[in-house]
Amino acid sequence: MAFAFRIHAIKKRDTMILANENFSKIQASYLFSNIAQKVKRFIDANPDAPLIRLGIGDVTHGLPQVCVDAMRTATLEMGVDATFRGYGPDYGYDFLREAIVRADFQSRGVDLSPDDIYVSDGAKCDTANFQELFATEGTQVAVPDPVYPVYVDTNVMAGRTGVFKDGRYEGIVYLECTAENGFFPALPTEPADLIYLCFPNNPTGATATREQLAQYVEYAHANQALILFDAAYEAFIRDDSLPHSIYEIPGAKEVAVEFRSFSKTAGFTGTRCAYTVVPEACRVFDADGASVPLAPMWRRRMSTKFNGVSYPVQRAAEAALSEEGVRQTTALIDGYLENAKIIRARLIEKGFQPTGGENAPYVWFDTGMDSWAFFDKLLNEAQVVTTPGSGFGRCGEGFVRISAFNSHARVVEAMDRICKVIGDR
Amino acid sequence: MAFAFRIHAIKKRDTMILANENFSKIQASYLFSNIAQKVKRFIDANPDAPLIRLGIGDVTHGLPQVCVDAMRTATLEMGVDATFRGYGPDYGYDFLREAIVRADFQSRGVDLSPDDIYVSDGAKCDTANFQELFATEGTQVAVPDPVYPVYVDTNVMAGRTGVFKDGRYEGIVYLECTAENGFFPALPTEPADLIYLCFPNNPTGATATREQLAQYVEYAHANQALILFDAAYEAFIRDDSLPHSIYEIPGAKEVAVEFRSFSKTAGFTGTRCAYTVVPEACRVFDADGASVPLAPMWRRRMSTKFNGVSYPVQRAAEAALSEEGVRQTTALIDGYLENAKIIRARLIEKGFQPTGGENAPYVWFDTGMDSWAFFDKLLNEAQVVTTPGSGFGRCGEGFVRISAFNSHARVVEAMDRICKVIGDR
Repeated sequence: MAFAFRIHAIKKRDTMILANENFSKIQASYLFSNIAQKVKRFIDANPDAPLIRLGIGDVTHGLPQVCVDAMRTATLEMGVDATFRGYGPDYGYDFLREAIVRADFQSRGVDLSPDDIYVSDGAKCDTANFQELFATEGTQVAVPDPVYPVYVDTNVMAGRTGVFKDGRYEGIVYLECTAENGFFPALPTEPADLIYLCFPNNPTGATATREQLAQYVEYAHANQALILFDAAYEAFIRDDSLPHSIYEIPGAKEVAVEFRSFSKTAGFTGTRCAYTVVPEACRVFDADGASVPLAPMWRRRMSTKFNGVSYPVQRAAEAALSEEGVRQTTALIDGYLENAKIIRARLIEKGFQPTGGENAPYVWFDTGMDSWAFFDKLLNEAQVVTTPGSGFGRCGEGFVRISAFNSHARVVEAMDRICKVIGDR
Repeated sequence: MAFAFRIHAIKKRDTMILANENFSKIQASYLFSNIAQKVKRFIDANPDAPLIRLGIGDVTHGLPQVCVDAMRTATLEMGVDATFRGYGPDYGYDFLREAIVRADFQSRGVDLSPDDIYVSDGAKCDTANFQELFATEGTQVAVPDPVYPVYVDTNVMAGRTGVFKDGRYEGIVYLECTAENGFFPALPTEPADLIYLCFPNNPTGATATREQLAQYVEYAHANQALILFDAAYEAFIRDDSLPHSIYEIPGAKEVAVEFRSFSKTAGFTGTRCAYTVVPEACRVFDADGASVPLAPMWRRRMSTKFNGVSYPVQRAAEAALSEEGVRQTTALIDGYLENAKIIRARLIEKGFQPTGGENAPYVWFDTGMDSWAFFDKLLNEAQVVTTPGSGFGRCGEGFVRISAFNSHARVVEAMDRICKVIGDR
């Protein structure tokens, strides 16, 4: 291996490979990395502490049996030449796209075509990648505050923002979600071209009514804007008056893209399957103001940069949408919602005013303290991991998010401990 | 559902959501879509024709049994609370990263750390996404011609090129691979910051010697450039003097990123697992010319835009790297290489001078005709699907690529038919 460089006539030049300097704008301390570090330090110091994790929004129960069975059968098929499947369709198998349309949309009276569905390996990936379809210069991004950090960070990396200053990026419109507005943001008062919304919300657990979403759809039409609607938690909705999809709002197909996931619905966080809806009617604009259909752009992006989801995983996702699959996933979610109910009830007993947890797996409440101080208190005194609200944005300061993703027994135990160490409000 | 828009006070404004106009530069006719359309028309007209596909580079044999077993066992674990796994590590499980280092690198005398390995769902995704780490303005991209279209199209989408003109994009440096240079490109004579290389090559099947790769490593050091090295086909190398990894070249860690895949190695095209190597020593530069480590940028990209590979799939990949797994995958590849040998031999009989097929699954040859005309002739007269070389770039004009990915019997039959319809050269 030890041979020296041979000498070649290389023309020296004065350019070089340059880093994307937008990366240097991103805040180094990613929320969940910070939490992980604090938890690690705590465990190192207290190796026997009976820690309970209600922090990161990761499911804890096993996959529904229908999914396990479907995935194992499909894996067997992959081992036999006659039934082996190589590259699948870039946008997902028809069997899955058809099951999605039937189970997730027709069941709610929403008319979509399987061609509007794009299967992927995660809603995080899709919400992160979708911004590639828009101009770098002149796209005014609006996000809720508090917000899932991915919407923001991906636009920072793409160069659509200025620097981070006083807790916010310059050049982004922040739509404040506070107790005063019931955690549903007022319409933008500054120009906003690309609007991220998420309901049921991460982190607040708040939901949006039809009328509220209709305001945004109307705004997008009137202002030639586009809504990126993250519905990753729709399966937690139990109040039947609430929309599960933005397409339940008339006129939404022209102005909204929707992200869905099997992660929280069927426990696929480690199995990986999601999808994005881009209706054929959905449009953006070119520099002359002419309408440009969005779906062909997403198709081109997907076929150039993606190679489809693992076939056995797509079979597992299909199984989750079967009649028996829906029964099993509903039971799974009912369990998490039961946990959320306990979290809410115990906080209310102590005089807090939580939001969320009724149609969402997250409970969000004003602690009356600094977010990180409250987080530290719960970690050190109750051995419970939560998520400090300030990590989601300036409007999250003072809040903490508690996740219902754990076993019933652990949630009961965690809330007993929490209630012992926090005073009444 | 039929409620009209409520009237809100919406401020009209004169901005709008703008499309990324770079998408309009991309050639609408993606090579493999064109082929698929031609094949579809042929089948519609000749529904009973015994078509044999040696076109797209997709494997045809079932997964190795060790992979099937590992994936089925891991899927069972996912169905039980006690062994269920949710979100995995963003960069892949340690068990897989360690197996990769041991089986793919230490076995070749290359010293890498598991921390240098980033597991993903596909080498296509990684080669497509990696360019995000570099500046949009001032990054001079160099690609081979002929070339895997993804390297080019993703840089077009990102705005690093001009328009498409006379078969090439303005602003890209094309490194010509011809019979004269043995399909290994001469060093760039124009500035080049980001250089894509692929060996064993898609589409030509050509390989690179240590000395040839060392020239590029030396060039990258001397010119502060970076090499993106696609080694997706390394498992097909049977000539032991040839390097499998660019890290077999001294000095490569500072100036090269390597892409690997389980797709062609273990038949994972429909199962989805790959990885990228970004050594800690690898550097780019900031605008002041200061060195910037690349690995933290890739980690940030991965943790922000990706959520890891399906756990059962990672177990299947681990199994492919076990002793028994290597035995099974080697047998699989030996079969494809036996096919390639037949393709080569039959073409040589007819007076053609093929390259590739000895340490690669692709055979590439000058047809003496227009690429598409030859493709059409084989499709219509021999009912065999191939890939026209011109689809890979200007230097591919006149060439055709034949893939060895099919059963032995079908390859023999296809070559019999081809030899009947083509004249001697």
